[in-house]
Amino acid sequence: MAEKKLVESITSMETDFAQWYTDVVKKAELIDYTSVKGCMVIKPAGYAIWENIQNQLDAMFKETGVENVYLPLFIPESLLQKEKDHVEGFAPEVAWVTQGGSNELQERLCVRPTSETLFSDFYRNDIHSYRDLPRIYNQWCSVVRWEKETRPFLRSREFLWQEGHTAHATFEEAEERTIQMLNVYARLCEEVLAIPVIKGKKTDKEKFAGAEATYTIEALMHDGKALQSGTSHNFGDGFAKAFGIQYADKDNTLKYVYQTSWGMTTRMIGAIIMVHGDDSGLVLPPVIAPTQVMIIPIQQKKEGVLEKARELQNRLKDHFRVKLDDSDKSPGWKFSEQEMRGIPVRIEIGPKDLEAGKCIVCRRDTREKIEVTLDELESRLEEILKTMQKDMLERARSHRDEHTYTAANMEELEKIFTEKSGFVKAMWCEEQGCEDIIKEKLSVTSRCMPFEQEQIGDTCVCCGKPAKKMVYWGRAY
Amino acid sequence: MAEKKLVESITSMETDFAQWYTDVVKKAELIDYTSVKGCMVIKPAGYAIWENIQNQLDAMFKETGVENVYLPLFIPESLLQKEKDHVEGFAPEVAWVTQGGSNELQERLCVRPTSETLFSDFYRNDIHSYRDLPRIYNQWCSVVRWEKETRPFLRSREFLWQEGHTAHATFEEAEERTIQMLNVYARLCEEVLAIPVIKGKKTDKEKFAGAEATYTIEALMHDGKALQSGTSHNFGDGFAKAFGIQYADKDNTLKYVYQTSWGMTTRMIGAIIMVHGDDSGLVLPPVIAPTQVMIIPIQQKKEGVLEKARELQNRLKDHFRVKLDDSDKSPGWKFSEQEMRGIPVRIEIGPKDLEAGKCIVCRRDTREKIEVTLDELESRLEEILKTMQKDMLERARSHRDEHTYTAANMEELEKIFTEKSGFVKAMWCEEQGCEDIIKEKLSVTSRCMPFEQEQIGDTCVCCGKPAKKMVYWGRAY
Repeated sequence: MAEKKLVESITSMETDFAQWYTDVVKKAELIDYTSVKGCMVIKPAGYAIWENIQNQLDAMFKETGVENVYLPLFIPESLLQKEKDHVEGFAPEVAWVTQGGSNELQERLCVRPTSETLFSDFYRNDIHSYRDLPRIYNQWCSVVRWEKETRPFLRSREFLWQEGHTAHATFEEAEERTIQMLNVYARLCEEVLAIPVIKGKKTDKEKFAGAEATYTIEALMHDGKALQSGTSHNFGDGFAKAFGIQYADKDNTLKYVYQTSWGMTTRMIGAIIMVHGDDSGLVLPPVIAPTQVMIIPIQQKKEGVLEKARELQNRLKDHFRVKLDDSDKSPGWKFSEQEMRGIPVRIEIGPKDLEAGKCIVCRRDTREKIEVTLDELESRLEEILKTMQKDMLERARSHRDEHTYTAANMEELEKIFTEKSGFVKAMWCEEQGCEDIIKEKLSVTSRCMPFEQEQIGDTCVCCGKPAKKMVYWGRAY
Repeated sequence: MAEKKLVESITSMETDFAQWYTDVVKKAELIDYTSVKGCMVIKPAGYAIWENIQNQLDAMFKETGVENVYLPLFIPESLLQKEKDHVEGFAPEVAWVTQGGSNELQERLCVRPTSETLFSDFYRNDIHSYRDLPRIYNQWCSVVRWEKETRPFLRSREFLWQEGHTAHATFEEAEERTIQMLNVYARLCEEVLAIPVIKGKKTDKEKFAGAEATYTIEALMHDGKALQSGTSHNFGDGFAKAFGIQYADKDNTLKYVYQTSWGMTTRMIGAIIMVHGDDSGLVLPPVIAPTQVMIIPIQQKKEGVLEKARELQNRLKDHFRVKLDDSDKSPGWKFSEQEMRGIPVRIEIGPKDLEAGKCIVCRRDTREKIEVTLDELESRLEEILKTMQKDMLERARSHRDEHTYTAANMEELEKIFTEKSGFVKAMWCEEQGCEDIIKEKLSVTSRCMPFEQEQIGDTCVCCGKPAKKMVYWGRAY
């Protein structure tokens, strides 16, 4: 049967999660590969998700006083080298422009992997007095990192993101902004993408190149692997000193500014796929879904069916993002496509429904079929989509909680990571030596020291000495 | 006086238009220069204009069925070379990436100057059947062209734009889309940016590298120079044949697709400046202005003034993009700033106005001061902004018409371009030889063969042979 083909063309999650992921991004028409290794085409269905993320996140940013700007794509090599830790972190993985037109450039330009150096160079000229502070700027752009292993959305040589870069008069204000933006990211994940996250601080080993502190939100994917989903960095006055960004304070003395940066990327589309997807394909949270409702007529050649379906579409389009599939494919095939693309609900309407003045609303996540009278369709749909959004978050939270373990010593830690997949909470002495041992021995990384610390033991999981912090460990994308 | 400084800091238009332009982009805080030659920072005041253009244009696109996508930043050299005319047009002015991380690349990658080759490569795999057509895709991104002479917004090594790329089953459908998008651009210019444009076709000499036909909208700046403001290209099946983009038609035979592309860039911000600006700075059309209304309190330390100003701001903010300048600068200085930034109207409100229950609304374009009672402020403001938008378009149209001349022969043509600056309409025999002579001799270019042809003579302005087309000539940015 034709309707089976689409679903059968994807590998099941249990068989091979990585292959399932690759199948879904292709079959749900989110991306296509290109002749440039590690660079992809984001197709309309994928880009529309990103547009919705952008719109929601940009509105949240602006509520907190963020202004958008655009800085160049290129960074002169000498500029990249001004902050020592930063250049060490990024130089090995950048793309270099060495020729412009038919001439060799006098100085190599790197294609921005991130723009701390450009913003710092800009702020050096832009900030003079305390009146110019704070600067709360953000840009939406693409960045390039010359990764060896690539996967669509999760790790690609070019990806889309936003990068916020701020400058403040005091360390405290910078810290406050760093945490504020992390909270914005957490809200976007939970309220919009239905993805619960752990908020916390990175260990020194895992923090961003050049940062004093890096905060992160960490999500758990369906296969039990962790995904770093947004980071926010407090640079203190490190970049300000390296670049000479000073302002005249009210007391007329020159002071260095304090800076932050924070970013979220198209990898969140990968997170949506891996948190909510199933063996029939994508499942999109209603708030972010480019199409929320797909109307699929049954026996559409029968008199009145298509007319009624179009009438419904017209009725609904002021309230929902709705489409009608009036192609000549079979209803079963249309169901498969709607499911593969993760459209939150479909409305099935046929001759019998018309007679009875009702239709069937089918939820993508639970497959639940709900009979709804046409009179109350708007209010019921709204309620169904709202419930679905809430259920998706709760289901993801339960899955994460069920796959979060605790370990008291290395034996337990090793056993869990051998037998299971998920987050493991463990106490830590805060010595990098212990972190190194765990990372090397178990091939896992510290995900964060969560803000919500728990006293699950007194001794470090590795060395047994007194513990200072609880850490989340995981295998990460 | 402090209030004079800001205005005095810019050169007058009559003295030196180029310097005036450079002063305005800096003093209105639209851009900043960077350490990469020819690349600029677009600051919040500049980027907000671009965001508004994007929002308006994107909505117009979507009404015509456009879907957004994202394609890679990099084009492998072999791909760029597939269409002969295209590579000849662009290869001399691209930036080349030759190193990724610490390795030399096996094949150079150019940073996209435009993406016809990438879209063609993508469509080759994406289009199989007549059911897949048309494809009406667009992307918002930045592109790089290694220009020698650069000017903010008008000609920079990196600029922001949108590029639409479509594929169709027939030449006629492609032609229809080409014209449709040109009309969208013209509508944006006239209805949103208040810039009247001439719609027409480029001569073969001036058409886009690889196109069968290029259509353009041409605007006249205040100094009488022309600005190409948007172009739309019909490629016929040229790229399809070079890249092998075929589809199975209903009759089951393989056919080549027909393609188009169309783009508009951040140079339109330059057009807004050069069409509407004056010696006090920027003048923004109300529809596109990021801030439409600036409330400036007079004697703001007097009791009740600031409170009332804030109350007004709150009242107006649901209807207009409104700001309040409650800084401790003098009113005169605030006026200067509002004028420099081109904010369409300011509201002046002081103690006397409060007593009388009224305020002064001052139009940026005409400096007209209008007394308005506070009760009817919303409706009057709406009317004033609407009138201002209309007046700005009409003023620009009059200016253009007054600076559009006709020439019957080379002597007249030369005289006009020596003594005056503007568009010159002249008849042409359609031989490229004549076009070459005029271009070389007078340092002007053919702007377009307008859709609205006029029979202003019978003979070619250059050779005197029978004329076939009327052409607009001009000095262009």
